[in-house]
Amino acid sequence: MKLLYPTSLALDTSKLEGFSVDIQPYDPKSPTIPSELLDATVLVTWVNTHENLVFASKNMPNLRWIQSLAAGPNDVLSAGFDTSRIVVTTGSGLHDRTVAEHALGLLLNGARRFYEMRDYQLQGKWPAHLGGAQPDRPKDRFTTLRDARVLVWGFGNIAKTLVPSLTLLGAHVEGVARSAGVRNGITIHAEADLPTLLPKIDVLVMILPGSDSTRNALNAERLRLLPKHAWVVNVGRGTTIDEAALADALNAGEIGGAALDVFETEPLPVDSRLWKAPNLVLSPHAAGGRPQDAEDLITYNLRRFVAKQPLKNVV
Amino acid sequence: MKLLYPTSLALDTSKLEGFSVDIQPYDPKSPTIPSELLDATVLVTWVNTHENLVFASKNMPNLRWIQSLAAGPNDVLSAGFDTSRIVVTTGSGLHDRTVAEHALGLLLNGARRFYEMRDYQLQGKWPAHLGGAQPDRPKDRFTTLRDARVLVWGFGNIAKTLVPSLTLLGAHVEGVARSAGVRNGITIHAEADLPTLLPKIDVLVMILPGSDSTRNALNAERLRLLPKHAWVVNVGRGTTIDEAALADALNAGEIGGAALDVFETEPLPVDSRLWKAPNLVLSPHAAGGRPQDAEDLITYNLRRFVAKQPLKNVV
Repeated sequence: MKLLYPTSLALDTSKLEGFSVDIQPYDPKSPTIPSELLDATVLVTWVNTHENLVFASKNMPNLRWIQSLAAGPNDVLSAGFDTSRIVVTTGSGLHDRTVAEHALGLLLNGARRFYEMRDYQLQGKWPAHLGGAQPDRPKDRFTTLRDARVLVWGFGNIAKTLVPSLTLLGAHVEGVARSAGVRNGITIHAEADLPTLLPKIDVLVMILPGSDSTRNALNAERLRLLPKHAWVVNVGRGTTIDEAALADALNAGEIGGAALDVFETEPLPVDSRLWKAPNLVLSPHAAGGRPQDAEDLITYNLRRFVAKQPLKNVV
Repeated sequence: MKLLYPTSLALDTSKLEGFSVDIQPYDPKSPTIPSELLDATVLVTWVNTHENLVFASKNMPNLRWIQSLAAGPNDVLSAGFDTSRIVVTTGSGLHDRTVAEHALGLLLNGARRFYEMRDYQLQGKWPAHLGGAQPDRPKDRFTTLRDARVLVWGFGNIAKTLVPSLTLLGAHVEGVARSAGVRNGITIHAEADLPTLLPKIDVLVMILPGSDSTRNALNAERLRLLPKHAWVVNVGRGTTIDEAALADALNAGEIGGAALDVFETEPLPVDSRLWKAPNLVLSPHAAGGRPQDAEDLITYNLRRFVAKQPLKNVV
């Protein structure tokens, strides 16, 4: 049995040894895959080109399992693989820590107004109004995570990784997900409760996957329910926010600000109104992009694949 | 006995009740203090004007204790109070959480390069090189706190408050202080060890007080010992860094960057070379400036003062 791993990231292949499996590298940016590798049973993918995946889908008759290292392997699913004989597993979990850290950074950027300080610095001006004596935890502004009411919409592994950092800084965190309950000690509400939740928060952190059901989840109606000082942070998928409605809300001062790592179209189109919207912090899909401990997931699933057991993270 | 509290912050004075003490407000921005208050025994200060403090020093014969809410009450100490009869206590501890949060934000700003993203945003450009697929924890760059080697120089209450957030994100934290040992589970080195410590770190966080002994603590010689990718964060006092040497190091690319909340002269003079130094993040002394839970410190010390016991935070 042959497993192909991509050269697009530095994998410690010594961690993949110990199975009766032939481990071979391949270039996921190449339009083809070398003929001597086309009999592989397992394909690990990471930032492959569309051409490369289409080629693989047509020329690998023995392929039975694709392990993507992306949290959402839309690239694999749209390449034409015969999913009646090929199992696809995602890299869910490999991006939790890096995305959570980025989200925390975006939250503090908004609270401490580093983006505004930068604007002043570039003009050679000292932003005196942002320093010196300041009110402590004013109710009408988002200035700190201490005692901030944070609602995390989309309560998967990234949220669970982020929450301890927020609570350590003194935030009061609750979640929203498809099913209500208590997870990791955090109260999770159903989406039906959003109309009563949104008016009472200081920050909305969105970590929703991209799908038809999450499209424009944060729309004009829900934006209107947020307090005037509330911030929105999105590290999920850009399609989950109605960007025109968000630009309207920012321009009208109806919310405090937004820090976005994801956009409906990336790169953000030059004519997007978000570029110049006030209190909009733009991050270029930089939260993840570096799978961590991928070797552990691959070997976990490889052992189960060899033993004919169900795999983890099946699409 | 009369205690005067300043109107420069919102104190919950109900928390100061329960003693046989007459609690009265005063305006610390006024050039004088009303004559009916000049017989007070206790003065609480916060962002008083120099004129106000000089007036108090000359016109309050019964004054025996000044409770400053600043971490470093240089303003009180330079106003001419007769410290042979007046005890001065600091607001040390009231700024730990807010300064620690700010320091964490500056660290993530440097690691995730939010300042650089902002520069691109203002030009309407998508900073593609900062997003998408990225190397995970490269050795030659500071990109994340996970596995980052962080050295905290000045290991008081702010450092102790900051460290759990750093370790939660996966940083390897050690400290430097006047005396070596282990505090809060963190290895603390003596300053004599800096020559062997500085070459091995990714970030230096400075939280030193301002004094003659800390002036230019981070000088050209020590800056040269840092790796080329290392960042410097300063939330202590501006005098502890040789700013000319730091500007040289940034301009020459000898360190990765610096995020400074404090400067030798504040506001930063218009002709300072730091304004335009590359990878310099400027924050306008914004980390603290909002004493938290000041009522607890005041009542703690007030009870002890009434009972003639030693006070906390004596200068």
